Amino acid sequence: MTDATPPSAGRPAAPRGLSRRGLLGLAGAGIAGLGLGVAGDRTVIAATGGAGTAAGYPFYARHQAGIVTPAQDRLHFASFDLSPGTSRADLIALLRDWTVAAAAMTAGRDVGEFGAVDGPYDAPPEDTGEALGLEPAGLTITFGFGPTLFEATDGTDRFGLASQRPADLVDLPHFPGDMLEEGQGGGDLCIQACANDPQVAVHAVRNLSRIAFGKAAIRWSQLGFGRTSSTSTSQATPRNLFGFKDGTANIKAEEPAAVDEQVWVQSGDGPAWLAGGSYLVTRRIRMTIETWDRTILREQEAIIGRSKGEGAPLSGGSEFTEPDFDKAGPDDAPLIDKAAHVRLAHPSRNEGRRMLRRGYNFVDGNDELGRLDAGLFFISFQRSPEQFSAVQLSLARNDAMNEYTRHVGSALFAVPPGARDGAYIGQALFA
Amino acid sequence: MTDATPPSAGRPAAPRGLSRRGLLGLAGAGIAGLGLGVAGDRTVIAATGGAGTAAGYPFYARHQAGIVTPAQDRLHFASFDLSPGTSRADLIALLRDWTVAAAAMTAGRDVGEFGAVDGPYDAPPEDTGEALGLEPAGLTITFGFGPTLFEATDGTDRFGLASQRPADLVDLPHFPGDMLEEGQGGGDLCIQACANDPQVAVHAVRNLSRIAFGKAAIRWSQLGFGRTSSTSTSQATPRNLFGFKDGTANIKAEEPAAVDEQVWVQSGDGPAWLAGGSYLVTRRIRMTIETWDRTILREQEAIIGRSKGEGAPLSGGSEFTEPDFDKAGPDDAPLIDKAAHVRLAHPSRNEGRRMLRRGYNFVDGNDELGRLDAGLFFISFQRSPEQFSAVQLSLARNDAMNEYTRHVGSALFAVPPGARDGAYIGQALFA
Repeated sequence: MTDATPPSAGRPAAPRGLSRRGLLGLAGAGIAGLGLGVAGDRTVIAATGGAGTAAGYPFYARHQAGIVTPAQDRLHFASFDLSPGTSRADLIALLRDWTVAAAAMTAGRDVGEFGAVDGPYDAPPEDTGEALGLEPAGLTITFGFGPTLFEATDGTDRFGLASQRPADLVDLPHFPGDMLEEGQGGGDLCIQACANDPQVAVHAVRNLSRIAFGKAAIRWSQLGFGRTSSTSTSQATPRNLFGFKDGTANIKAEEPAAVDEQVWVQSGDGPAWLAGGSYLVTRRIRMTIETWDRTILREQEAIIGRSKGEGAPLSGGSEFTEPDFDKAGPDDAPLIDKAAHVRLAHPSRNEGRRMLRRGYNFVDGNDELGRLDAGLFFISFQRSPEQFSAVQLSLARNDAMNEYTRHVGSALFAVPPGARDGAYIGQALFA
Repeated sequence: MTDATPPSAGRPAAPRGLSRRGLLGLAGAGIAGLGLGVAGDRTVIAATGGAGTAAGYPFYARHQAGIVTPAQDRLHFASFDLSPGTSRADLIALLRDWTVAAAAMTAGRDVGEFGAVDGPYDAPPEDTGEALGLEPAGLTITFGFGPTLFEATDGTDRFGLASQRPADLVDLPHFPGDMLEEGQGGGDLCIQACANDPQVAVHAVRNLSRIAFGKAAIRWSQLGFGRTSSTSTSQATPRNLFGFKDGTANIKAEEPAAVDEQVWVQSGDGPAWLAGGSYLVTRRIRMTIETWDRTILREQEAIIGRSKGEGAPLSGGSEFTEPDFDKAGPDDAPLIDKAAHVRLAHPSRNEGRRMLRRGYNFVDGNDELGRLDAGLFFISFQRSPEQFSAVQLSLARNDAMNEYTRHVGSALFAVPPGARDGAYIGQALFA
């Protein structure tokens, strides 16, 4: 736009599916100055299918993206409560609108037909604009349904969904040591937005929250940085704020049998609408990093059960060597302590239970004593919440790491399968 | 390390100045498994001088980095209060330790002689470890001194610095509309850590905070993402959370005359120790983005005085066209409104006053109504705080944008010049 005068009607139609990247190219060529409408088209256009950071991950797929797709570096997670007065029809309309918007944003397009760029002048822009000119940045948007969607805390069935409730979708048990804070858990709906640029993830949650205005509002939310796990063998193992590698033994996308057995809800596991989905657990785990940082290295490694540098099990080998829990040192004590995290969390000690972890580090300012409000926003995906609960119960009782952590937030969501092009997320639930 | 048994004494000395990048390379070659000490050496090693993301910005330089160096994408800012009982000698020791650690980290090395990797086993690691394997990511660390360093709130001169206090280093005035929150401003010392990877910025503040343990504690802190200004003509203008380009008219490093006139404190401006330094203002500006997002585009653009897409002034042209504040539209009203931000902030309306802005977007969760706690963490550098105060007074009185913003935090620091190799930050203050 070279002139501030609002353009008259009859502007050229927006090119279909023009990505932000495309927009940037046009701007460089001077075309953006000609008054072209440049935002995305509400018509549903599936992503090109070329997974990856530049092209984006396809939104319309058998499973939702953001689970076994490679973990990005940044997170904006938001839990929503539906507003009083929101009807079943409103809920369906919301999921439909969210689906269309998510498909557009994950493909690097804006939310509206006319986006933030040039009108219409007498309406609020349909897209808030702060992601204009940014890459899709590998954005994935993953939706989930909380237990209260099926039965409100007062026992009412607001949306006629009680009969569709999976038996497993009940509040997680109270674990020893839990110090859950009011308002930091639960929720009717959730959105996990992951990207390699935080502004792109924030833009997604903000615009989806805006679309929900009047129907649902954010209950709690969390930003994260520095993924604390790998979901692909192509990724290096990152470090959490204890300074240790995290996620060495995580389920990887390259293990399809384990993914099917441990992550995806299978036909027959429960109600049909959830087959191909998963269960998402979040735990906001505050770390007392100042205390940790004054702990001697020998003790840090004993607590984790791995070396700090290489991440090798203390029984020897390198990062990906299987731990030998029976191997003893010169003093006949096991090299991997009885209370070591790696021992207690290991599948061999948990009847084969594993999870796909996808958490993030967080720092949310500091407390009045000058200690960072820092820790791990734990996210795991599993075929049944019981996988998480059984392992967490063992950890909560015995893990030497508990001295340095405090679980302050907790939530569980059923994650429906992906939507096919033209459908909306969770549609089978309302059939 | 291939074995959990703590190594005996006499391990090979750590290679001097080995960067994290170097470490990563070694690990790939399998050498990290041989028990080599891999962390940085406390001996001061100046950065190579090759500015840029990969090589890092030189720490020892005439001016501190993080001011006119290209704005990175992520911020961790922390303000510290010195603890009761901290002496002048303790303060000097702290600044000396911070200098050495900052020089190491900005060069991509760890803090300690033996870092997080392999010992000594009976001491806490000197580096917390979460940045191992990460690139230097363009890290800059910039230190500043608050008014209370020179005179405590009770009027005492704790460190014998009252005679060295610059006349300009007094609390900023109260501006109309200020809604400053307790504990969200001020501070004796500050650290601005900027990097292109948030984990690298967080690692820096965390380790500097740890070094300060017992001497100083964090008073308040702020994470930010998505720089809201450019400090170099080589950078594209980014967007703030209003969705508008921000910083089009910012001072750029490529304007040395403007930098000298507006940013660096000159000899004769005040006490000699501050020549070559600057004044740093921070303002935590909460944006009511949910209200903004429901405002029509015409109104949004009228408030800013620029178009949302291109960022061109409403008087016409493209992004970098000078605004014409006298140009009127068909209705004889000026195309750029009398209360538009671009008009009120323009140097021509402020007797030539400019600032170098270096702020960041922030989202810190949400409030109890589900609104994002989001906004702009404003940072500006200027030769005198009066440059900021005069412009802010004009904005606070008249800016149409005030309806959508709330200033909740405020601080002022004197930023000393850079240190030469072997010296410490602010050394001339203690001469």
